[in-house]
Amino acid sequence: MRILFVGDVMGSRGRQMLTAYLPKLKSRYRPQVTIVNGENAAGGRGITGKIYKEFLQAGADVITMGNHVWDNRDIFEFIDSAKKLVRPANFPSPTTPGLGQVYVQVNQLKLAVINLQGNALMGQTLDNPFHKADQLLAQITQETKLIFIDFHAETTAEKEAFAWYLDGRVSAVIGTHTHVQTNDARVLPQGTAYLTDAGMTGAYDAVLGVQSEKSIERFLTQLPTRYVIKDNGRGVLGGCVVDLDDLNGHARKIMPVVINADHPFSFDD
Amino acid sequence: MRILFVGDVMGSRGRQMLTAYLPKLKSRYRPQVTIVNGENAAGGRGITGKIYKEFLQAGADVITMGNHVWDNRDIFEFIDSAKKLVRPANFPSPTTPGLGQVYVQVNQLKLAVINLQGNALMGQTLDNPFHKADQLLAQITQETKLIFIDFHAETTAEKEAFAWYLDGRVSAVIGTHTHVQTNDARVLPQGTAYLTDAGMTGAYDAVLGVQSEKSIERFLTQLPTRYVIKDNGRGVLGGCVVDLDDLNGHARKIMPVVINADHPFSFDD
Amino acid sequence: MRILFVGDVMGSRGRQMLTAYLPKLKSRYRPQVTIVNGENAAGGRGITGKIYKEFLQAGADVITMGNHVWDNRDIFEFIDSAKKLVRPANFPSPTTPGLGQVYVQVNQLKLAVINLQGNALMGQTLDNPFHKADQLLAQITQETKLIFIDFHAETTAEKEAFAWYLDGRVSAVIGTHTHVQTNDARVLPQGTAYLTDAGMTGAYDAVLGVQSEKSIERFLTQLPTRYVIKDNGRGVLGGCVVDLDDLNGHARKIMPVVINADHPFSFDD
Amino acid sequence: MRILFVGDVMGSRGRQMLTAYLPKLKSRYRPQVTIVNGENAAGGRGITGKIYKEFLQAGADVITMGNHVWDNRDIFEFIDSAKKLVRPANFPSPTTPGLGQVYVQVNQLKLAVINLQGNALMGQTLDNPFHKADQLLAQITQETKLIFIDFHAETTAEKEAFAWYLDGRVSAVIGTHTHVQTNDARVLPQGTAYLTDAGMTGAYDAVLGVQSEKSIERFLTQLPTRYVIKDNGRGVLGGCVVDLDDLNGHARKIMPVVINADHPFSFDD
Ligand SMILES: [Fe+2]
Ligand SMILES: [Fe+2]
Ligand SMILES: [Fe+2]
Ligand SMILES: [Fe+2]
Ligand SMILES: [Fe+2]
Ligand SMILES: [Fe+2]
Ligand SMILES: [Fe+2]
Ligand SMILES: [Fe+2]
Repeated sequence: MRILFVGDVMGSRGRQMLTAYLPKLKSRYRPQVTIVNGENAAGGRGITGKIYKEFLQAGADVITMGNHVWDNRDIFEFIDSAKKLVRPANFPSPTTPGLGQVYVQVNQLKLAVINLQGNALMGQTLDNPFHKADQLLAQITQETKLIFIDFHAETTAEKEAFAWYLDGRVSAVIGTHTHVQTNDARVLPQGTAYLTDAGMTGAYDAVLGVQSEKSIERFLTQLPTRYVIKDNGRGVLGGCVVDLDDLNGHARKIMPVVINADHPFSFDD
Repeated sequence: MRILFVGDVMGSRGRQMLTAYLPKLKSRYRPQVTIVNGENAAGGRGITGKIYKEFLQAGADVITMGNHVWDNRDIFEFIDSAKKLVRPANFPSPTTPGLGQVYVQVNQLKLAVINLQGNALMGQTLDNPFHKADQLLAQITQETKLIFIDFHAETTAEKEAFAWYLDGRVSAVIGTHTHVQTNDARVLPQGTAYLTDAGMTGAYDAVLGVQSEKSIERFLTQLPTRYVIKDNGRGVLGGCVVDLDDLNGHARKIMPVVINADHPFSFDD
Repeated sequence: MRILFVGDVMGSRGRQMLTAYLPKLKSRYRPQVTIVNGENAAGGRGITGKIYKEFLQAGADVITMGNHVWDNRDIFEFIDSAKKLVRPANFPSPTTPGLGQVYVQVNQLKLAVINLQGNALMGQTLDNPFHKADQLLAQITQETKLIFIDFHAETTAEKEAFAWYLDGRVSAVIGTHTHVQTNDARVLPQGTAYLTDAGMTGAYDAVLGVQSEKSIERFLTQLPTRYVIKDNGRGVLGGCVVDLDDLNGHARKIMPVVINADHPFSFDD
Repeated sequence: MRILFVGDVMGSRGRQMLTAYLPKLKSRYRPQVTIVNGENAAGGRGITGKIYKEFLQAGADVITMGNHVWDNRDIFEFIDSAKKLVRPANFPSPTTPGLGQVYVQVNQLKLAVINLQGNALMGQTLDNPFHKADQLLAQITQETKLIFIDFHAETTAEKEAFAWYLDGRVSAVIGTHTHVQTNDARVLPQGTAYLTDAGMTGAYDAVLGVQSEKSIERFLTQLPTRYVIKDNGRGVLGGCVVDLDDLNGHARKIMPVVINADHPFSFDD
């Protein structure tokens, strides 16, 4: 099974990049499953029911989220019926709306897609993601060996430790949240594909998708400058492609995907 | 001018990687100046006078540091006479030992090397690095247009904002501290080379250079498991090469450097 | 000189408590100067020009602030002309609106009122308050020996260290921000009055002035429950009275002030 | 039932204060149960088997801990057999050494003593203390209605929310960790005694028990100054006395206890 993953889609510029390049990426890589992180899709903060549907129509099979999942209040309107949306599975309350994992059926194969959030330097305390993963896997491994985790976390230490902890037990641990793609895509010794961060999808000449002047002003003044998402200019798309062995669920290969003015999309790479 | 930079050298495995590959990298890239981040050189925590000298003998021209600068008490013994060591320039006290910037003379050219530390999520509060950079540059630009900054910081937001703030005013802003190389090397529109993080130099099958079992145990138990630096097995080296226009100090090109089992060193790249 | 200080006034319930008890407190203690922390006066977030004027009319001579100073955008409309409002003096930018210190004239005597913010665990990085205090005092001590500091900070360590650092150099260091009065009012050996936190003014049966159910829900679910200020029910007022020696500026005495259902106001205490 | 609680005993000066005043406090208040927080008893960092025994001999019935529980490695030697030591119950791993709750038998009555740690701004992530309390109470309430919780946490928000959450379900929620006693002892409407922080026991002229010069130096320089516990000079003891209704477990009364040079011990208070 081949999976295409696209990192945090940031605002309208991110949505444009997604709809412009998803067809091309699909045409080039021919993935069976496409997963897109949508935690910043609605103006940088959360997602709406409308955007959720657009992403599915644009070719996404599953939408993963992160710490911004609840930022747009529209989520509470549509999450109960959003069967392809995954929010972090380790929110502490049993009454948390939405799903922390979903299954995608591809012919005879079933892929489990999990979203988990880290705790280190996140300014929020969810259930321990290491123990939660154990708990989820106890059940999921009854169903399938094909398991993809979007691990939404800040620190490289927590992300790497998490991947090594699950090495050989899941197909892929792909990090999100920092909005900058890392250059460490690899298959760990026991067969888990790993990338510390897939990067973001949105404006290229910006600070994590935010207008750089606004971000700079905040660092200079420490005043609560309003972040403004940059919605024009050059774009960037970050993600990766992972190939799995359908029999044992191990990853065979992971390829980073990055599209920007310095690395324009090409069918020849 | 061509500059070779090597990211956080972590413990003995990192020192081995540095001494093994620095000659090869120099032979391949032929840099005029070589800069190495040594904040984790002594068992992961700080640097000693002995290691400082070894790095210079191995071919480094300047050693930069970071938040771990004071971890090994030996620093207080040799820093006053270490003319090629740069610690973060924005420590708040005027009596802070050591230098926050140094100059390297290469024939007729002079390169200023600055070390600054970010404040976001660093668990420590130094002077505002944006304002401090302005203050340092007011003086340095009287001396040279060739200016290299090792910006030691945690968050991608602070690193990107810092680089955009200085775009066109310095030759390069290269991030360190997260120990994972990012895949975003670029020259910003006004001529500043930028890389969010250069990555680390040390053990490849480890969590930021620490034995993965020890790191995992801490996340699982929240007990103060003693971190043990992994000092054997496969290695990694992270860094970059930056080419500057000697006349205006702008960067022409930045190339990431990564050496590991998945990307072995080759003279043909 | 006798100074009456009232801690963080929280929303409408806090404003009611202030206007109800300030006359009684003045009648009982007969202070020459009354200082009120107003960072939460407007619905828990910042202050408006209207409230600022109300506080002055109710008998406050100076309004101090804290990390919430910019929360209500109205501040940017009136702060330039608000000569009795003090916001933290250690914002890093020289263009920060407003004043970090003001003088109050009482007959022949002049009291300097300073507002400074701590950095530890505040989620924001201002200039080092210890060094900033030195800098401010270099000038202020030319004018007067009567110096009052509202130190707005989170940790007891930073607050105590700050007070010991300034012991004998200022008349009083009174902490704010945690909204819970501490039981450690004392005059330090060199003559500085100190109280780790003066406490808050607002609803008594609430979590720092916020409806307890809302606050509890956030801790239980980690969802972004909207905080709602409790604006009815029993009230609390926290503060202190400090007596200064007019000649040397040293504190003679500090008395905590607390009014709530368990400690009703009385003229006989 | 009357309970005497003594807050964080800090180093040798704290141990001296405890042994000097515990007999006097017992003689004055005649508590049936005495509980002492010992997380800083061994030089400010953790506790040893020897000190644990000394505290029991000095009259403590139960020793509670906090985030410093594992600082002194001796804990791993004796905790398995320390039946009167309680460490935070919400460490995430089921293999955590030690107990998170103990029972004390007083004639026909049984008191449950629980230790829980907060997560907000603690730099460590334990299981959610609100949910963990629910889980513990489900079992404990089968045994007794007399339940005492030492809630070791940083922020006033988490402490107050926790107390309101448990109001009427436990006898007392007494906060520790900040080392400064708060002035808010009260019985909440449904019968739970509450105090945000009981304060510390140790040196009075110090920063949370640490030599003030050392603490100040760290804030001034941001260098890793070694903290040195102040072990001489004037002392302080912080704590409280709680009276319970034996039939329903509700608190009838809570009285803060503070002994220092400004509030010397007296049998007449
Ligand atoms: Fe994001
Ligand atoms: Fe995120
Ligand atoms: Fe490092
Ligand atoms: Fe570092
Ligand atoms: Fe406040
Ligand atoms: Fe505040
Ligand atoms: Fe403590
Ligand atoms: Fe503690």
